[in-house]
Amino acid sequence: MPLILDGKKVAESLYQKLLLELSMLPVVPKIVFLLVGEDPASQTYVRSKGKKCQDMGLLSETQLLPVTVTEEELVGRIQALNKDKSVHGILVQLPLPAGINKQRVLREIDPRKDVDGLHPENQGRLFQGEPRFIPCTPAGIVEILRFYSIPIEGSKVTVVGRSEIVGKPAAQLMLMNNATVQICHSKTKDLARETSAADILIVAIGKPKFVTKEMVKEGATVIDVGIHRVDGKIVGDVDFENVSQRAGAITPVPGGVGPMTIAMLMKNVTQAASLRE
Amino acid sequence: MPLILDGKKVAESLYQKLLLELSMLPVVPKIVFLLVGEDPASQTYVRSKGKKCQDMGLLSETQLLPVTVTEEELVGRIQALNKDKSVHGILVQLPLPAGINKQRVLREIDPRKDVDGLHPENQGRLFQGEPRFIPCTPAGIVEILRFYSIPIEGSKVTVVGRSEIVGKPAAQLMLMNNATVQICHSKTKDLARETSAADILIVAIGKPKFVTKEMVKEGATVIDVGIHRVDGKIVGDVDFENVSQRAGAITPVPGGVGPMTIAMLMKNVTQAASLRE
Repeated sequence: MPLILDGKKVAESLYQKLLLELSMLPVVPKIVFLLVGEDPASQTYVRSKGKKCQDMGLLSETQLLPVTVTEEELVGRIQALNKDKSVHGILVQLPLPAGINKQRVLREIDPRKDVDGLHPENQGRLFQGEPRFIPCTPAGIVEILRFYSIPIEGSKVTVVGRSEIVGKPAAQLMLMNNATVQICHSKTKDLARETSAADILIVAIGKPKFVTKEMVKEGATVIDVGIHRVDGKIVGDVDFENVSQRAGAITPVPGGVGPMTIAMLMKNVTQAASLRE
Repeated sequence: MPLILDGKKVAESLYQKLLLELSMLPVVPKIVFLLVGEDPASQTYVRSKGKKCQDMGLLSETQLLPVTVTEEELVGRIQALNKDKSVHGILVQLPLPAGINKQRVLREIDPRKDVDGLHPENQGRLFQGEPRFIPCTPAGIVEILRFYSIPIEGSKVTVVGRSEIVGKPAAQLMLMNNATVQICHSKTKDLARETSAADILIVAIGKPKFVTKEMVKEGATVIDVGIHRVDGKIVGDVDFENVSQRAGAITPVPGGVGPMTIAMLMKNVTQAASLRE
């Protein structure tokens, strides 16, 4: 059996450090979640994030907006939160309803309150190797690798998927850590050949159990960002049982990357509050 | 012999299009170059850019600053140019003297005048796939590949070098064009193995004649970003004669990427002026 990369354990260790940091902050950080519409998955995510804030002693508030909200109304809400000094972090839960320009909305968030790290300025700082807020999921991946002392420098990392939220920032973080980095996606020819050359394989492709052992190098570290409900069971983008026969280390789903995403959000909110003081 | 990718020819074709665009603009675009110190290479670059502006009927101005200039003075100069409505583009010639924080200086340029595309906001927009100004050298590489109908989508591209000016934006542009992209650098193990898997190899490594045919796949397209003077001769990062025995297409040095860098700057300045009207 491969080493199981236990995201809950890594998150716990991070929470211990964060509680110490929080105890030294002169303010209690506050985050506002903007939740548009009634997507059940989004509702679940926002609830989990809010609950974790509570556990950590952070203030959080969820503002619900109807699916019929206009882009202008949403932007207006963001601008009000930008001005509100009691609010340190603003998170617009994605996806947004069709008809709302996501990029435009995200650009309106004050970059110093952009705890999801999706504002172009923050993405640009990351791209330039001087990040302010790092998107939570890729930041969590780095924490997992560090916690388990999996070497990144000089290793060959393949990222499958190129979203702004996971794939591209993950590639950038691996590059900052001196990995040789490849990005694959739907247009990649012979994906299995590419993935099976990787020492560290990061999969954020959005297809249940897509990655099988034929696509993985013997002993490789496999990070599974996917999360799907299939026949009542939670699975990732990686066929866990099958790939476990070949991987050297692997994140389970659930309990791998997921807990780290929330942990890194707590870290970003804490950082946002300390930026302000 | 491989196909020689003639950057002068591609640049000429671009200048024809730009002249037409310029003739339709209600203003004459103006760029200001800020040149700090007396680095001979920087002086040469700024002179070439200024001369090309003249050829194209653009206005340009070079402001010389002593090597002893402080960061504050440089920033003050930039802020004045940001306010000056007659100025459409601002270019701080790099490298800056030691002791001046390059990132801080570049962040001061109004992103709408940042014709080098190095402001974090512009780098973030590029990273997000919605670029405003694209750094000139990687933009020029894409133009060369398009001009010669070299397919990017689905091809395997390896970029050697990870600067903010060339390597990283080149990788991002190739990704936007649906290539499978790898970034290699000084910490890459077995560089030759990585480079010789590439259909398109982009070399921005800063070492004269570093790439030899053993590092190149038969029939690959080789783009050489380097420029060095060795024994009175101009050479690139690629050993041109040697690699020509194996490459399918190759940029010469000089006359490859170099002319395209200036051409794309002219394009960005034109774009900056049209943004403003």
